[in-house]
Amino acid sequence: MGPSGWFWFTYVPCLCLGLLCLLFVVFWSSYWHGGFAWDGSGLQFNWHPVLMVTGLVVLYGFAAVVFRVPFTWKQRKLPWKLVHGGLMLVALLLSVLGLCAVFDYHRASKIPDVYSLHSWVGLCTVALFASQWLLGLAGFLLPCSPPRLRRSLKPLHVWMGKAILILSLTSCISGITEELFFNLDGITGKSYSSLPVEAKFANALGLLLATFVLVVFGILSNKSWQRPETDGETVPIMLNENST
Amino acid sequence: MGPSGWFWFTYVPCLCLGLLCLLFVVFWSSYWHGGFAWDGSGLQFNWHPVLMVTGLVVLYGFAAVVFRVPFTWKQRKLPWKLVHGGLMLVALLLSVLGLCAVFDYHRASKIPDVYSLHSWVGLCTVALFASQWLLGLAGFLLPCSPPRLRRSLKPLHVWMGKAILILSLTSCISGITEELFFNLDGITGKSYSSLPVEAKFANALGLLLATFVLVVFGILSNKSWQRPETDGETVPIMLNENST
Repeated sequence: MGPSGWFWFTYVPCLCLGLLCLLFVVFWSSYWHGGFAWDGSGLQFNWHPVLMVTGLVVLYGFAAVVFRVPFTWKQRKLPWKLVHGGLMLVALLLSVLGLCAVFDYHRASKIPDVYSLHSWVGLCTVALFASQWLLGLAGFLLPCSPPRLRRSLKPLHVWMGKAILILSLTSCISGITEELFFNLDGITGKSYSSLPVEAKFANALGLLLATFVLVVFGILSNKSWQRPETDGETVPIMLNENST
Repeated sequence: MGPSGWFWFTYVPCLCLGLLCLLFVVFWSSYWHGGFAWDGSGLQFNWHPVLMVTGLVVLYGFAAVVFRVPFTWKQRKLPWKLVHGGLMLVALLLSVLGLCAVFDYHRASKIPDVYSLHSWVGLCTVALFASQWLLGLAGFLLPCSPPRLRRSLKPLHVWMGKAILILSLTSCISGITEELFFNLDGITGKSYSSLPVEAKFANALGLLLATFVLVVFGILSNKSWQRPETDGETVPIMLNENST
């Protein structure tokens, strides 16, 4: 099997893992926590894990590996930059909406917020993600950014991209931990330590998320799957538009 | 400032950050949790966070960047492989001792274990670390491993190395979260949500750990700081011993 074959052999399971994460988090919130609403109740809180997992991990991961898909290499880079940036923007907006869901719920239910390590790490992650998106827009999409700036920005962009994914996973795993201690030991009175089905299911979601993120890292770190450097990387949008 | 200057400008803060993480975790266990013992009591549990942070994150991070230190590039690779493998072995042994501390404490205090997401992720991390160490020994240190095997193993070794560090951070952050919910909301009755000094301190430890890991990733991902490939990478130990 050639490099392209091996890529698909990794990429398709990666996509499936991401979709499985989504299914798991939606099922967790629907089946054990009553589903969704936007009314300040616990049903509004349920949007928080779903939106954070969707935006900050799954969609983010899918967007991160867009440039690795081999059939895109022969095409112009600009449309794929727009796909990458567009997916990242949707991921960022979903994450911000996920934050709104939990802050709204806390305000309506008079629950204090921004005290746990989960919330500290999570807020840093979203703030870093927003900075990264703006930096990416200014540095790699705006026609006025000089090629030299792009070249020197790229390592920072790549490092920050990986940093955000690491922090996203960390936020999700600590968030699931927090939620299980709150709900199982706190609200429902079922003991987390007796491992009821919900606990096993949510723990499995955590492991699925970790596996997904590590597979994304595997795809990103394989040098033979990197898009060959083209002029598109170093010239501004307007020139890039006219190149093949 | 040249690449070497920039390296030290990043490496020295990285070392300081690692040491600060150690100071923080030792102070947390000593000042708020009564210090250390090996008697099945809560004082034995206190070894758990200290040993895991020391082995699985700080020492592991230091060992991961050993080959990036510029003055080692002109020296033979074998001694530095031994330093890398030796530090990793100490890190692994400390992590296993950290697991023994918590299992012993749970057994003595009749507390159930291996039910939380933190424990699931943590055990996977240590198991992966042990496999990685054995794979590293067999693939890169034993004289009988053929050069071709080394070349094909290296990307896997690098990816697993990063995966372990990501999982280590995830385990630590979820562990700190669990410990704060247990102790503040459970045992001491002080509320985590009122952010007592201990909560702020332990949250800060979490952020320090995340920063340390991200700086290690920064050092690892800078291509100009990678040791130039030498024959030492592709020839077995015995030949390597005789090369300059």
